Amino acid sequence: MKTFETLESSVRSYIRDFPAVFTKASGHFIFDEDNNCYIDFFAGAGVLNYGHNNPRLKKVLIDYVSADGILHSLDMATAAKRDFLQAFDSLILKPRGLDYRLQFPGPTGTNAVEAALKLARKVTGRHLVIGFTNGFHGMTLGSLAVTGNGSKRGGAGVPLSHTLHMPFCGYHGDGVDTLTVFERYLADSGSGIDLPAAVIVETVQGEGGINVGSVAWLQKLEQLCRRHDILLIVDDIQMGCGRTGPFFSFEAAGLKPDIICLSKSIGAIGLPMALTLMAPHLDHWAPGEHNGTFRGNNAAFVVAAEALRAYWADDAFEKETLRKGQLVRAALERIARDNPDRIGQVRGRGLIQGMVFTVDGMAETVARAAFAAGVIIETSGPKSEVLKVMPPLTIDDQTLSEGLQTLARVIAKVQSPKQSKAA
Amino acid sequence: MKTFETLESSVRSYIRDFPAVFTKASGHFIFDEDNNCYIDFFAGAGVLNYGHNNPRLKKVLIDYVSADGILHSLDMATAAKRDFLQAFDSLILKPRGLDYRLQFPGPTGTNAVEAALKLARKVTGRHLVIGFTNGFHGMTLGSLAVTGNGSKRGGAGVPLSHTLHMPFCGYHGDGVDTLTVFERYLADSGSGIDLPAAVIVETVQGEGGINVGSVAWLQKLEQLCRRHDILLIVDDIQMGCGRTGPFFSFEAAGLKPDIICLSKSIGAIGLPMALTLMAPHLDHWAPGEHNGTFRGNNAAFVVAAEALRAYWADDAFEKETLRKGQLVRAALERIARDNPDRIGQVRGRGLIQGMVFTVDGMAETVARAAFAAGVIIETSGPKSEVLKVMPPLTIDDQTLSEGLQTLARVIAKVQSPKQSKAA
Amino acid sequence: MKTFETLESSVRSYIRDFPAVFTKASGHFIFDEDNNCYIDFFAGAGVLNYGHNNPRLKKVLIDYVSADGILHSLDMATAAKRDFLQAFDSLILKPRGLDYRLQFPGPTGTNAVEAALKLARKVTGRHLVIGFTNGFHGMTLGSLAVTGNGSKRGGAGVPLSHTLHMPFCGYHGDGVDTLTVFERYLADSGSGIDLPAAVIVETVQGEGGINVGSVAWLQKLEQLCRRHDILLIVDDIQMGCGRTGPFFSFEAAGLKPDIICLSKSIGAIGLPMALTLMAPHLDHWAPGEHNGTFRGNNAAFVVAAEALRAYWADDAFEKETLRKGQLVRAALERIARDNPDRIGQVRGRGLIQGMVFTVDGMAETVARAAFAAGVIIETSGPKSEVLKVMPPLTIDDQTLSEGLQTLARVIAKVQSPKQSKAA
Amino acid sequence: MKTFETLESSVRSYIRDFPAVFTKASGHFIFDEDNNCYIDFFAGAGVLNYGHNNPRLKKVLIDYVSADGILHSLDMATAAKRDFLQAFDSLILKPRGLDYRLQFPGPTGTNAVEAALKLARKVTGRHLVIGFTNGFHGMTLGSLAVTGNGSKRGGAGVPLSHTLHMPFCGYHGDGVDTLTVFERYLADSGSGIDLPAAVIVETVQGEGGINVGSVAWLQKLEQLCRRHDILLIVDDIQMGCGRTGPFFSFEAAGLKPDIICLSKSIGAIGLPMALTLMAPHLDHWAPGEHNGTFRGNNAAFVVAAEALRAYWADDAFEKETLRKGQLVRAALERIARDNPDRIGQVRGRGLIQGMVFTVDGMAETVARAAFAAGVIIETSGPKSEVLKVMPPLTIDDQTLSEGLQTLARVIAKVQSPKQSKAA
Repeated sequence: MKTFETLESSVRSYIRDFPAVFTKASGHFIFDEDNNCYIDFFAGAGVLNYGHNNPRLKKVLIDYVSADGILHSLDMATAAKRDFLQAFDSLILKPRGLDYRLQFPGPTGTNAVEAALKLARKVTGRHLVIGFTNGFHGMTLGSLAVTGNGSKRGGAGVPLSHTLHMPFCGYHGDGVDTLTVFERYLADSGSGIDLPAAVIVETVQGEGGINVGSVAWLQKLEQLCRRHDILLIVDDIQMGCGRTGPFFSFEAAGLKPDIICLSKSIGAIGLPMALTLMAPHLDHWAPGEHNGTFRGNNAAFVVAAEALRAYWADDAFEKETLRKGQLVRAALERIARDNPDRIGQVRGRGLIQGMVFTVDGMAETVARAAFAAGVIIETSGPKSEVLKVMPPLTIDDQTLSEGLQTLARVIAKVQSPKQSKAA
Repeated sequence: MKTFETLESSVRSYIRDFPAVFTKASGHFIFDEDNNCYIDFFAGAGVLNYGHNNPRLKKVLIDYVSADGILHSLDMATAAKRDFLQAFDSLILKPRGLDYRLQFPGPTGTNAVEAALKLARKVTGRHLVIGFTNGFHGMTLGSLAVTGNGSKRGGAGVPLSHTLHMPFCGYHGDGVDTLTVFERYLADSGSGIDLPAAVIVETVQGEGGINVGSVAWLQKLEQLCRRHDILLIVDDIQMGCGRTGPFFSFEAAGLKPDIICLSKSIGAIGLPMALTLMAPHLDHWAPGEHNGTFRGNNAAFVVAAEALRAYWADDAFEKETLRKGQLVRAALERIARDNPDRIGQVRGRGLIQGMVFTVDGMAETVARAAFAAGVIIETSGPKSEVLKVMPPLTIDDQTLSEGLQTLARVIAKVQSPKQSKAA
Repeated sequence: MKTFETLESSVRSYIRDFPAVFTKASGHFIFDEDNNCYIDFFAGAGVLNYGHNNPRLKKVLIDYVSADGILHSLDMATAAKRDFLQAFDSLILKPRGLDYRLQFPGPTGTNAVEAALKLARKVTGRHLVIGFTNGFHGMTLGSLAVTGNGSKRGGAGVPLSHTLHMPFCGYHGDGVDTLTVFERYLADSGSGIDLPAAVIVETVQGEGGINVGSVAWLQKLEQLCRRHDILLIVDDIQMGCGRTGPFFSFEAAGLKPDIICLSKSIGAIGLPMALTLMAPHLDHWAPGEHNGTFRGNNAAFVVAAEALRAYWADDAFEKETLRKGQLVRAALERIARDNPDRIGQVRGRGLIQGMVFTVDGMAETVARAAFAAGVIIETSGPKSEVLKVMPPLTIDDQTLSEGLQTLARVIAKVQSPKQSKAA
Repeated sequence: MKTFETLESSVRSYIRDFPAVFTKASGHFIFDEDNNCYIDFFAGAGVLNYGHNNPRLKKVLIDYVSADGILHSLDMATAAKRDFLQAFDSLILKPRGLDYRLQFPGPTGTNAVEAALKLARKVTGRHLVIGFTNGFHGMTLGSLAVTGNGSKRGGAGVPLSHTLHMPFCGYHGDGVDTLTVFERYLADSGSGIDLPAAVIVETVQGEGGINVGSVAWLQKLEQLCRRHDILLIVDDIQMGCGRTGPFFSFEAAGLKPDIICLSKSIGAIGLPMALTLMAPHLDHWAPGEHNGTFRGNNAAFVVAAEALRAYWADDAFEKETLRKGQLVRAALERIARDNPDRIGQVRGRGLIQGMVFTVDGMAETVARAAFAAGVIIETSGPKSEVLKVMPPLTIDDQTLSEGLQTLARVIAKVQSPKQSKAA
């Protein structure tokens, strides 16, 4: 670990939460250099929906590289890219009755978001984009401006502009419909809130604390956007690719977003890849107007196409995810019931579920204790108050159950910060 | 190609210049699906300094994946990352007497730049960053604001701010020292130009038209920065990793930048990777203050470390690059002499060399004709007026010579746009 | 009128509402060149609280000019300015237990606001200032950014930044406490709303539609500011100088704002003048850091000081204003009761009272008809839906009553736009 | 003076340079409360071109007020305003072959500038406005962004944006044509400098150090603007109304600006007034889109119209100004010749002339000594290094000569700061 402390910037973070040097990984297991094995309830923050080194995906990757498949191509045409385009169209878009053009921005989530924001502003000729409280969209200057997290925003070094945050579903408690609050501003020419180019929303806020946008809220948001001629951007970077059950997280609400951002698990095995989807009539880009060196990451295309064929040819995978999601939900609710003094709400959708700890600092204490007990799990929310269960979707029931039992055990044992201070 | 036209956004660009579907690549050759072979004078815009599917690098990649090496890790500690850190420190930094901390931002150049800009602003508490005319630093909102290209800037959809462009070396012709122009503003409290946090500069502007910052100019720029307490950021994304000869392009000038951005060839085989290096006393980052899902692209780390061992254990590679660079330079000057009515300056450093066409549109015509004749080459500069020769550094002399002869032939044959219209 | 159409910019506005050429004015009467006399229920948008050409004020003005009193002095010391400073301190601040330093910015309201915003940002080192929905603070770029009016904001030609609008008292209806909404954002580090430098508020929004901030709401706002260490700026430009009864409009709520903006009636007779008051510990200005050519408008100082002596030596004037305000309020409520199909709420404080018309366009129709009947009155609110009764505070009961009767008559006669179209 | 120290903000500045309490003023003389008489070489920073309490102007002011002339009217039509419009058209515009619409913004220079900037951006749909090094345009956020002065800019509390500063005439010394520098950026799509909406320029920079834009430079600037379809705004607030000889300072160069800003002496006797003139085809304002409470300062209109009749019915006044300007110039050059170790350039146009002191701090020392000797004079320039002679244009030769002799005496006596320290 000394190497990291000496040579890597102090910006490093997860290394502090999971203090081990990892070497190998397979499916839902990660191994460190002392051969300790950990159950992965983190899944690379949503990158590894199909598990680490998924055999079928790994094989196509090795085959492709072995055969001197072209690895880097900017946005030249390649067979690998064509294959991915066709697979995405035939397996994802067509069956869902969706029609989008695909843009390959730089292969990271924030790049997909930056492309989406630019396009929305360019198409509408308006500057303002609405984000939501506790939304998370990336670290580059455009994406950061729609991100809620105060410490990340503070890192910008300049005031962030051309954006505004509206209250997410449930933000002001039960008595207040947050979209009524939002629309009040839009309907009033004196509100001081300019007509926005777009709204950018996560259906479930992963980093923000597993805040779930209800189906009704999401539908009402889409209608609000239509009424005021505002583009609807869904950032499905963490919640897409099956995390909540269906391929797109907004399928449950039947949305047809104008622009969709995908990344993380679209690359299927952990290779960087990102997509910005846009309704064809919005494809106002001039050639090369937004570019990026690694927008042609062919190794990722090959794996991504194979993952679509492997998991999305029918609805079996979606059903399995929902089934496992219910297992997790039930287990967490049991734990919550057993610990009413420390755990409030259990919330989530599909295979992302969170437990809200009501004692300051306890979610983090539990995550650390879970790591010591062999489960890698992270917290989220503005005060890191939510324990976030997000295993690979391919996890088997037995390991899932084992990991959940470890959590239960750890929570039962852990003392509240105040108790431990007293002790 | 139909697939691309139907499914991919109109933003696609290189596919228009190189209309073929590519499948395989090896060293300095690329193959399309009709088994046509092209000499690569483009090198993935600087990503493939070690050639396509470099056998030694390919082997470690396949071995790593085959052995279930962990592929994605955010910024958790991995053996692969540790190995890279140590290799970079012992093979690159230490031998050059350099001392930097490494930050792994998202694995694209623009992300490395965004991290650099944020850090410079955070450390100094100032908002303004100076870029240079025709500089190119990326497409996300922060990087785009220091980029000169007007059409890319126009894509932002919002006014770009907190930046200012100063004239690059030679920008105002021989009579004007551009750094004297720059410093006049800094020395005058009434100039309207606030004290900048940082200057960001490429030693040779690749996208901007192979504009070469002279050694004297670069040294004077560093001194100017020191005098006014401004941070010096070198964006070595395209020119670093040996492109101009030494590992860092600024070694010739003996600079010690405060912050350095690396990407493209640091990943060695085409996998996305990026680094932001900072002088240790500037490492003011709070943990996680800047993050990114793919900042732990371990497959890239493994290849990158191997590339350092393969090419940077001694100065042989640097010498070879300089030698080949002279071959290219001599050949281009010969072509220029043979075509005084169409070609002006030849310029570059190491294995990036450009020919400035003085007839509007001709550089692009030549690039298209070269493609038809089996050489992949691009243009750069604000009017695409510069033909940019940038092969893999590992190219052999024979292929290099063959490619250059093709260029000479093509240029001899090509008619000026006006001539062809007349014809 | 031809002269104006030919030579004056199309930006002119009130000339369109009151199509006559005015020549003289006295007290609450205005005369046009055809010797028509109008009752003034407009009072120069709040400039003429003491009436037109108030004899006592007029006398000191003429005497001062006649005696070659210095008229323009930038911020040199003058006897006139010293006299005003002392009068303001002894008659306004001291008796109210208030302690402020006076800044003389340029002599317009927007300049007082710009100075306040700059100071708040400078003192706190924060960029964001919170305005309120339908707030109105001026037309220069800083003030405009905290103004709500969409058409005025659109005139900026650039996106307005460093500001955010929170819902004013009652904005979201009875069920929602707007300050709870506001504070939710401040208490949540993930809300995307940076800690503001300041809040700027009008106690009653004049241009925004006579929206009254309740005493409880204003007090809660001040407490919220204290809790979060945010400066409280009261823009008392239209509501100050006795318009709502007491000299400062916030006296009813017992506020102690950090910064106060005054203009309009502070000049007493219609001469431009403005003040920015700041708590002494906030007076971080460097000499000359904010300046303005006309900040020393001595003719205004002379009149202003005399007005303070004439009207604010005791509480008689305040009481009279409140008494007359009740007369107006009662009359308007009577009119509203008589016209339940066209008039909703009657609202206001002191001698600014408004009637909300519930039929689109009718308030403007009424204002036009009132003008034809000899009463000058304007509308306000985002849809110009509020008829705004704002006579000089010095108006006598008889004229007040006459004007109100005219209004009643006009409203009774006026047809709704739809009716008139049908007719 | 105690009153000011206790009650007025520390932002006060001229009071520190001229430590006396002034009471009366007449023509080119100012009197303090101890009956000391000062020759005014400052003229209210350009407000008092016609002298203090000019008898003819004073008379119309007193008559107007005495007759209950309407003083405040927003932008309602008044006889006083009509009279001014007609006088301005017939005495100023028509005889010069100029055609402009008049906008009455708030009655301060900065307001005229803000209106100009808004209009230029609105009309062109572009955000960027070019100012010049050491330009001075006002203190509100829009105007401040085109102002060069660093300490004033620092007072903004937020980064200033949407503006850029180009080098004024002569800024880079004799060898560099600053407009060639400027146009290089415009002609290069990769310069990073977006196409501007407008350029805003003073023909002679008063606050910036009496920097004179040569006739050739001004003409070339206008041509550059025409070539690139950029609007030309002349800020004639300090240099207009005859200061340099002709009514508009740009007459010498024969410019036809798109937009002109006037204030200061347009009000003639020191009352706040401002104008924004625009070519009729640029008058895209919607009614009320830019407004301001005091835009109808009728007392100023009355005096302003009389001043036009008194001084601009023929070219006698202009000739007198030029003649007196030559007297001043000759005197200053004599002083400069006598003090070659302390005084560099003498520069100016018409009755604004400056001497550049080459010893740090000496111009300020001289100004203080001149005040002690009975001459009010200020310094300007980024280091306050320029002594600025700017008397009322109506000054008589004898007093002018007397003031200049005082300056010569004072300069001869004053020791350089170093000498005095040594002493």
